[in-house]
Amino acid sequence: MSDNICNASDTFGLEISHTAGRARAGKLTTPHGQVDTPVFMPVGTVGSVKAVTPEQVHAAGSRMILGNTYHLMLRPGAETVATLGGLHQLMAWDGPILTDSGGYQVFSLAHRRKLDEDGVTFRSHIDGSKVRLTPEIAVQIQHLLGSDVMMQLDECPPGQADHDTVAAAVARSADWAAKCKSAWLQTKETPHSPGLKPQALFGIQQGGVYPDLRARSAAALVELDLPGYAIGGVSVGEGHDAMKLVLDNIHDQFPADRPRYLMGVGEPRDMLAAVAAGVDMFDCVLPTRNARNSQAFTWNGRMKMRNAQWATDTAPLEESCHCYTCRNFSRGALRHLFMAGEMTGPTLLTIHNLHFFATFTAAIRQAIIDDNFPAMSQKLLNYMYVH
Amino acid sequence: MSDNICNASDTFGLEISHTAGRARAGKLTTPHGQVDTPVFMPVGTVGSVKAVTPEQVHAAGSRMILGNTYHLMLRPGAETVATLGGLHQLMAWDGPILTDSGGYQVFSLAHRRKLDEDGVTFRSHIDGSKVRLTPEIAVQIQHLLGSDVMMQLDECPPGQADHDTVAAAVARSADWAAKCKSAWLQTKETPHSPGLKPQALFGIQQGGVYPDLRARSAAALVELDLPGYAIGGVSVGEGHDAMKLVLDNIHDQFPADRPRYLMGVGEPRDMLAAVAAGVDMFDCVLPTRNARNSQAFTWNGRMKMRNAQWATDTAPLEESCHCYTCRNFSRGALRHLFMAGEMTGPTLLTIHNLHFFATFTAAIRQAIIDDNFPAMSQKLLNYMYVH
Repeated sequence: MSDNICNASDTFGLEISHTAGRARAGKLTTPHGQVDTPVFMPVGTVGSVKAVTPEQVHAAGSRMILGNTYHLMLRPGAETVATLGGLHQLMAWDGPILTDSGGYQVFSLAHRRKLDEDGVTFRSHIDGSKVRLTPEIAVQIQHLLGSDVMMQLDECPPGQADHDTVAAAVARSADWAAKCKSAWLQTKETPHSPGLKPQALFGIQQGGVYPDLRARSAAALVELDLPGYAIGGVSVGEGHDAMKLVLDNIHDQFPADRPRYLMGVGEPRDMLAAVAAGVDMFDCVLPTRNARNSQAFTWNGRMKMRNAQWATDTAPLEESCHCYTCRNFSRGALRHLFMAGEMTGPTLLTIHNLHFFATFTAAIRQAIIDDNFPAMSQKLLNYMYVH
Repeated sequence: MSDNICNASDTFGLEISHTAGRARAGKLTTPHGQVDTPVFMPVGTVGSVKAVTPEQVHAAGSRMILGNTYHLMLRPGAETVATLGGLHQLMAWDGPILTDSGGYQVFSLAHRRKLDEDGVTFRSHIDGSKVRLTPEIAVQIQHLLGSDVMMQLDECPPGQADHDTVAAAVARSADWAAKCKSAWLQTKETPHSPGLKPQALFGIQQGGVYPDLRARSAAALVELDLPGYAIGGVSVGEGHDAMKLVLDNIHDQFPADRPRYLMGVGEPRDMLAAVAAGVDMFDCVLPTRNARNSQAFTWNGRMKMRNAQWATDTAPLEESCHCYTCRNFSRGALRHLFMAGEMTGPTLLTIHNLHFFATFTAAIRQAIIDDNFPAMSQKLLNYMYVH
């Protein structure tokens, strides 16, 4: 670990213990404890991982979660979260939390968005009220939320955007990264509350599918010497192969001693490719959203639990799984709960899917440690996608 | 405990350890363990206590739950439940389960109901299919479900029904009770599965607000010498005072050594009156349904958690409460979860309300044991309803 001001301290940093090619296994230290990497973060959009209590999230094996600045600034508002003791207190989650900056949601959810040099003005998707988000405001909000990792505000163009559009987004995002850094350093000097634990700031690479822009974006961020770097603007419709081309270069674009976070990616195949390229952190709504739609992730691929084939099946969802759901419920019972519209169905499947993502990530990590990652990766792909 | 064939055995019976006037504290033995009485049973209508896992139900202090024959016979069907190992297995609940007979739901939910001497034919509220329910079928279904306590099929007339209508319902319910007893004894001789644990059958008193009909109904049931007796047809709009008049007579109408179950009652004030009259068992959707509507039960009355007054309140819902929700979440956090429409809101409030009903019932029981029930009862009423 480096010990310069921006990255390292006793409270934040990545320590890599094993590598296999470009793949890395390590430990991320945060003010709310250490987590093994690669790490998958379930998404707790509005102050709760949907359908489960934090106790169930932890029991399922998740150790770090994500919160959404966009949603929380609109409701209940960052000041209210701060009054209630910060996001950890609000969510009753004592482990690390990463908050995104709101950029992605502004570009995907908000109405009547107007972009300028200094930020973006939009209408709330909840009540139509006018809201302003700038790099400084994004940092200030995340400071009030009190997350362990805050993200810079960025501009995330659509997956099919042309080179000029993406180039402009890269330039603006780089400018906003610098502004976020200044605002972040300011919060460290004058925290809103004396007891607040120090927070880290990650920059976000943009550049779409254009290698030159990805390189330009990375260079600008690395120049800022931030505690961590995220790869943004993937998983926005560009496809697995285009994502791999982006990932191919991150090993050379970002310093080895900083965590690398691939935003919004959770498809197991993509995660394996990303780990192989040197990514340490992931978040995605897949395990939770798909669970609510009755889809289970297993080592043998996915199962739709509404399917009639499970109606009288007495086996657990996955024989080898140790999650609460698989230890206690049959496939037939789960199907029934979904067909009857009982809330317990989504809850039980969310528990299983979170457990799957936690064990999947742990298996990847172990394979790196055992120097067996490429073979293990191929085996997992065969299990999950081929048969 | 008596040891005649219908009531007692090693596997089912009520042992009363303390009385205070007509109020009773005891232990109900069932094939799935013992529970302290008075006992409150949360309602698990369709194979799940809504919004919570069985682990959360148990952690909240609930020890016996209720399932609904009507709902389960329609979906997933009693045969399917049996194939999946019975209702305990389906729900992952290892404690006692009582199933109602479906009578009440047929009269409140089903479409195009047609009543005859032998049973009732109706249309499913789910898919409009034609369904037949007779005393024999009700017992057979509950036998397939494998509950610890099955209820007779009865006719439950509306609260404002006239004397003649109620008299007819009493006669029919008495006739059906006898038929249920025959069918039940038959299941004991030839159980559908050799491993099935023995089940108890309760009769249901009807009679509306008419003392003569209540007496007639009770006499007919007691004649059948059943393992337990329920008071039905209350909490259907007749009001607290009319309910008390019904309850006043049960001490003399039913044998002391059999459990008495007041169906569908959970309003704390009504429960106190019922325990004073000699009731041992309760069920009600109040704690779970009201939780989903953001209403919390506390020792100081009810709280609507959507109210703006809680927005920045950092105190737990109830300072003295030891439930998971109160140990981990602020009022402000709970309000936020409800305002944001997060499923975790209903889950957390269900946990609290179940815990409240478990501790409320335990406090009643302790007061009986301590010979302090009337004073305690008055104190609780003052806390909950007066201030």
